Amino acid sequence: MAEPTDREACTPPQVVGLGLCTVDMVFVVPEAPRFSGLMHADAYLRQGGGPVPTALVALARLGIRTRFIGRVGDDPDGRFIGEELAAEGVDTSRLMIEPGSQSRVALVLVETQTGERGFTAREETCQPLLPTDLQPDDLAGARIVHLDDADPVSIQAARWARQAGQTVVFDGTWNHELLDEFLPWVDVPIVSEPFVAAWMPGATPQEVVRRLRGYGAHTAVYTLGSQGCVVATDDTITGFGAYALEAVDTTGAGDAFHGAFIYGLLQGWPITRIVDFAAATAALNCRGLGGRTALPHLAQVEAFLGQAGSLARYTLA
Amino acid sequence: MAEPTDREACTPPQVVGLGLCTVDMVFVVPEAPRFSGLMHADAYLRQGGGPVPTALVALARLGIRTRFIGRVGDDPDGRFIGEELAAEGVDTSRLMIEPGSQSRVALVLVETQTGERGFTAREETCQPLLPTDLQPDDLAGARIVHLDDADPVSIQAARWARQAGQTVVFDGTWNHELLDEFLPWVDVPIVSEPFVAAWMPGATPQEVVRRLRGYGAHTAVYTLGSQGCVVATDDTITGFGAYALEAVDTTGAGDAFHGAFIYGLLQGWPITRIVDFAAATAALNCRGLGGRTALPHLAQVEAFLGQAGSLARYTLA
Repeated sequence: MAEPTDREACTPPQVVGLGLCTVDMVFVVPEAPRFSGLMHADAYLRQGGGPVPTALVALARLGIRTRFIGRVGDDPDGRFIGEELAAEGVDTSRLMIEPGSQSRVALVLVETQTGERGFTAREETCQPLLPTDLQPDDLAGARIVHLDDADPVSIQAARWARQAGQTVVFDGTWNHELLDEFLPWVDVPIVSEPFVAAWMPGATPQEVVRRLRGYGAHTAVYTLGSQGCVVATDDTITGFGAYALEAVDTTGAGDAFHGAFIYGLLQGWPITRIVDFAAATAALNCRGLGGRTALPHLAQVEAFLGQAGSLARYTLA
Repeated sequence: MAEPTDREACTPPQVVGLGLCTVDMVFVVPEAPRFSGLMHADAYLRQGGGPVPTALVALARLGIRTRFIGRVGDDPDGRFIGEELAAEGVDTSRLMIEPGSQSRVALVLVETQTGERGFTAREETCQPLLPTDLQPDDLAGARIVHLDDADPVSIQAARWARQAGQTVVFDGTWNHELLDEFLPWVDVPIVSEPFVAAWMPGATPQEVVRRLRGYGAHTAVYTLGSQGCVVATDDTITGFGAYALEAVDTTGAGDAFHGAFIYGLLQGWPITRIVDFAAATAALNCRGLGGRTALPHLAQVEAFLGQAGSLARYTLA
């Protein structure tokens, strides 16, 4: 989309991500909209979304060079997605616009009192990324590749990343058919409750992270929202709490967690420090409406951790 | 907002309008959105709205030079309102941006099958236009001034217009408190059912247009949607039908009618030709989603009228 500047052309991104992107129209409303009359909204925000793009924005705010690879429609929403990422400093030179197609947009309703959320999506008509869209150069120089789906292009990207000695991080959400083919290439799977509900219904967190480790992952994470997360490394399984805080909107909390987790991996921190940092970033992001509004800068996370201290943790195995 | 080009600076607008402007987020959905789960939208459109701006876009499509005077918030929506009007050729040099404020945005839900519509507005925090915002030069050179509310700035504009020999057209919608002060300055009031429901509940169309003429209007119009309209001129009251057609979305039908009615006034046509032309423009505008998408060019209206012929009409007094 945007031409890289000389500096970007010479300095490869540290993290490259592939995946879905959307434009979210967030309306905070005291009652559900109906098909008649005039109602009132307390707040409104139009903002790009999608798990990987939002994680890359989290990384960009923390000072990391990132690139997003994806496809958008040939419409104002597609241009908005690219402009917003570029404004955050994410490299969008490999964001592809499909002529004549539409981008995915979503109406996000947030209930004023409870914060409950419902999504209404107008689906994209642009094609999903295909393996042929990807070139080895797209990932060159990165230390981490971040993926959101077990689809053919992600499998391609993960294989290339493994061959190049890059770390593959996976935000597990949708496609479950190709997981057996995909997971062996993943170094750090981070999965959430909707993923587990479809993949291993009724499983305990220990069973989930053990199974993920069984595919060869060196660190496996199961996030449980305000209940914290469970992390498996080597033969240790550790449970972590979460930072309590008055949330304005939990949209993007998971994506912020993934971005900050990747930040910690890049620093080579021990896992306990990585999880504290990721949980703090996610908590801070809940202070603003929308998935990206309150993504913190590094100093804000450090200040928060300086006050809040380490998360409670407990050994599970 | 935009600097006028030399041509614009030398050639005044033929029509100047003042009033409310919004950004509409239109979602066509088979079911009302809820606060949980993932639902589907059949179509989506983000488009500027508001009675006067949309009427000015209708006029611009018909080849008329127009200017919009209004105030928007200091946000992406305010910029979008200005850019979209400018792209249509509407002069936005007097569109004011209020620092630190928000524009009005509206979620418009359209039911897929029935076309029923519900509105959820996030209100603007920018101030309404005030008489002190208006300068005599703002209206200079125009032949028609188009207003949407009986508020102090509209009264100011209507007085100046009358003094300058300009024709004042009024799209009656909201404020009823200052009508007695405002209506004496209006040459062509065009009111609709919601206006009448508040102003003269239970009145017949004849009573409505007679009362409007009583304030001094030379032509008074009461629009009744798909039922047509009733028009009073001199001592004649005439009812007109409407053009039947498969409507995609009736949003903006009234605004299109007003714009096209003003076009006919500029041409000096007889009232029957003006009403046919306005009804045809409104009908054509219902063929697209959103208030402005299907606003026709002059040749399209003429082609439609060549096929459809004159509206049915009947004398009421």
